[in-house]
Amino acid sequence: MDTAALIDQLKAAVGADGVLTDPDVTAGYSRDMMPLAPVGSPLAVVLPSDTEQVRQVVLACAAAGTPIVPRGAGSGLSGGANAIDGCVVLVTTRMNKIIEIDADNRLAVVEPGVVNLDLRQAVDKHGLFYPPDPSSYDWCTIGGNLATNAGGLCCVKYGVTTDSVLGLEVVLAGGDVLRTGRRTVKGVAGYDLTKLFVGSEGTLGVITQATLALRPQPMAPGTMVASFSSTAAAGAAVSRIVREGLVPSLMEIMDAASIKAVEQHLNTEVGAGAGSAALLICQSDSGGEAALRELAAIEQICTDSGADLAYSTTDLEEGRMLLTARRAVLNALEVYGSWLTDDVCVPRTRIGELISGCEEISKRCGLTIAVVGHAGDGNMHPTIVYDASSPEQFAKAQQAFDEILEVGLRLGGTITGEHGVGKIKREWLAREIGPVGIEAHRAIKRALDPGSLFNPGSMFS
Amino acid sequence: MDTAALIDQLKAAVGADGVLTDPDVTAGYSRDMMPLAPVGSPLAVVLPSDTEQVRQVVLACAAAGTPIVPRGAGSGLSGGANAIDGCVVLVTTRMNKIIEIDADNRLAVVEPGVVNLDLRQAVDKHGLFYPPDPSSYDWCTIGGNLATNAGGLCCVKYGVTTDSVLGLEVVLAGGDVLRTGRRTVKGVAGYDLTKLFVGSEGTLGVITQATLALRPQPMAPGTMVASFSSTAAAGAAVSRIVREGLVPSLMEIMDAASIKAVEQHLNTEVGAGAGSAALLICQSDSGGEAALRELAAIEQICTDSGADLAYSTTDLEEGRMLLTARRAVLNALEVYGSWLTDDVCVPRTRIGELISGCEEISKRCGLTIAVVGHAGDGNMHPTIVYDASSPEQFAKAQQAFDEILEVGLRLGGTITGEHGVGKIKREWLAREIGPVGIEAHRAIKRALDPGSLFNPGSMFS
Repeated sequence: MDTAALIDQLKAAVGADGVLTDPDVTAGYSRDMMPLAPVGSPLAVVLPSDTEQVRQVVLACAAAGTPIVPRGAGSGLSGGANAIDGCVVLVTTRMNKIIEIDADNRLAVVEPGVVNLDLRQAVDKHGLFYPPDPSSYDWCTIGGNLATNAGGLCCVKYGVTTDSVLGLEVVLAGGDVLRTGRRTVKGVAGYDLTKLFVGSEGTLGVITQATLALRPQPMAPGTMVASFSSTAAAGAAVSRIVREGLVPSLMEIMDAASIKAVEQHLNTEVGAGAGSAALLICQSDSGGEAALRELAAIEQICTDSGADLAYSTTDLEEGRMLLTARRAVLNALEVYGSWLTDDVCVPRTRIGELISGCEEISKRCGLTIAVVGHAGDGNMHPTIVYDASSPEQFAKAQQAFDEILEVGLRLGGTITGEHGVGKIKREWLAREIGPVGIEAHRAIKRALDPGSLFNPGSMFS
Repeated sequence: MDTAALIDQLKAAVGADGVLTDPDVTAGYSRDMMPLAPVGSPLAVVLPSDTEQVRQVVLACAAAGTPIVPRGAGSGLSGGANAIDGCVVLVTTRMNKIIEIDADNRLAVVEPGVVNLDLRQAVDKHGLFYPPDPSSYDWCTIGGNLATNAGGLCCVKYGVTTDSVLGLEVVLAGGDVLRTGRRTVKGVAGYDLTKLFVGSEGTLGVITQATLALRPQPMAPGTMVASFSSTAAAGAAVSRIVREGLVPSLMEIMDAASIKAVEQHLNTEVGAGAGSAALLICQSDSGGEAALRELAAIEQICTDSGADLAYSTTDLEEGRMLLTARRAVLNALEVYGSWLTDDVCVPRTRIGELISGCEEISKRCGLTIAVVGHAGDGNMHPTIVYDASSPEQFAKAQQAFDEILEVGLRLGGTITGEHGVGKIKREWLAREIGPVGIEAHRAIKRALDPGSLFNPGSMFS
């Protein structure tokens, strides 16, 4: 089939206004937020409005042998949604209906283009809570969250995206519409296809609907902050908090470089004072006495581990300010240059070593590396600051990015805690899971997508 | 290859004492606890002691074209581990080492033959908790729990088996040893193969090791019990408890037939009094004031929903007694005859209707159907009592079993909440997930086990 015929079919499928081919326009849909990832030029960008339109797009592309790269808002950090040359980028943002909120059974049924924040606000009106909260929660879509199995700050207590998914509707390569899972909270009828598609980064099909489990709104959180003059001491505190069986609803860490950047950016002292090497921010949403008890225990552990300062507050505004500081790190770093954020997860006892490892890499390459992360589950985001106009610095940043992964693996960790493999960590995936693991991936890919229609070359090849 | 040659190879693989061929002996390994399921005669039963022995058994059977049925303790309730004619039953009970308990990172690495209770006790010494607690926890193995994605009483707060699994080691059909997952609490490097193997009922490979996530020991639980004179009222209470956002650590329901059987069996009144149509038992392990608040709120909802009696206690012995009553239901029913327990999961708002549906089926078939279940997640176990010596009653029991599934599906539920599909619900799986779902299952099975070596004919065909 020639290109013009395919474009006509796509227009017939989704309407002329749903097919973009102007290269200046399609360029805006061809990459996510990861500067390292390769980008191709799409043949077209299509914006279907419902499952049947997705099905028609899939059938047309399959017949034409044209690969499909599914995409939500493009907030990803692995190049997973980046276009490849000659592909069709299938954008789900028009499929943004919240189909149902069943408050009595604590579930929601949504289309993939719903923005995470919109879902949060909609279920909040029913006193309910959708936990996964990636940093981009105010603009990323649920479809992207599902594709990457997104995490966030709440994971330490409430798990990642896959823990909140009951069922999916997926358009497969042959145009069949697969329904996985169910509306009940338990169920073992067949393979867990739901959790196979979650985190598959658009390589197995197009998710067109999701049934999501909701939780009761947690109580208003109390907050503890502790400042340490060494990262080792902060790491030791995290280990002991975990060891003592405490489960805060949030436990974030910022290293010296992050603290400094945020303090300059917000023009305020982040509760730490000069010479702070690490800041630990914990919240408990257990409510009332239980939260106070939990925070007091965490504060005591921080003090025992050598914190220079540790205090707790039930003041919501103060808690919010501390979280704002944490969430501001990437913006704050932009003052110094472009940033490149990595994503490794290590056993919780190894966080101090990971931060030290990043300090060594920083010294070696001469670039600032600010480490922030979800200390409660060992998922750290060392963020490299570089001058994007300098090819030399960009090359150094790339090398530092890889060296961080090396350290992560050496500490018994994984090369991605929540951002995904995408188009930047394929070789690293192969290294982490080995040839038997890669062959199992290929076998499953061949089984569900024999023509390699969906996002070919992403994750593994 | 002839049979004798295969037996020799198996003996070479696991030692002569690890291969059983005497039909009187192998019969003891050829079925689980589900009387409805078909049973075949195995060629041999093998008991490997480590991964390499499993690998040798797999290679020998693959070469001979002899199917393998993996098996733990045989506590299953779906015939999933039942032998088929001429197969090799691979029993994991010799692989019963707890390889590691890493208290600091809250994980354990175990072999599949470890008994659930042994793991619970071992981690308890470290102040840790392995949540999944199927009724057979004192004799079932972790391998079987993984194969069926087992649930239990704790699921309402702590999830099912898959929620506690970080990684697996699996021997695949070609003899390759696949390692899935990781030791970190988060990770998205590649497809979630771990959760694909969990619940795959031995059809994709032999699990030889598991890395399990542990939790802090919960606080000693407080208990609330409420008695209702109608199942509809009890169902309404469950709905409201869920709706109000309360998350007890346990919420079990027993209907009139269950209560009566247990009262006779234990020769005691189960807190209910005559004429009780349903008993609701809830626990909270939130500790101290939080638990009391939670139980008081639940008690109030029960009273508001029309409970004849509702009271809470922090007395551990009394709580244990009430749970003993709940756990005694199956034994209690044995006084009346053999039992056949079903396993459906419905949306939590439909529990009352499911119980009513079972009452109607009971009237129609003339057999007692006692309904007990995990009300907190809608997973109910209607249990049919029949005279095993009467073919007519057995046939009626079979029919009632199917009619219960019918009601479950009609109420928007699933045909199995935690027992699995096995060899008794294949047709029902096809009905629940439809042809596209079944074809996806077949494709994945072909991808990972192209020769259909593992448990062929179980789950789907």
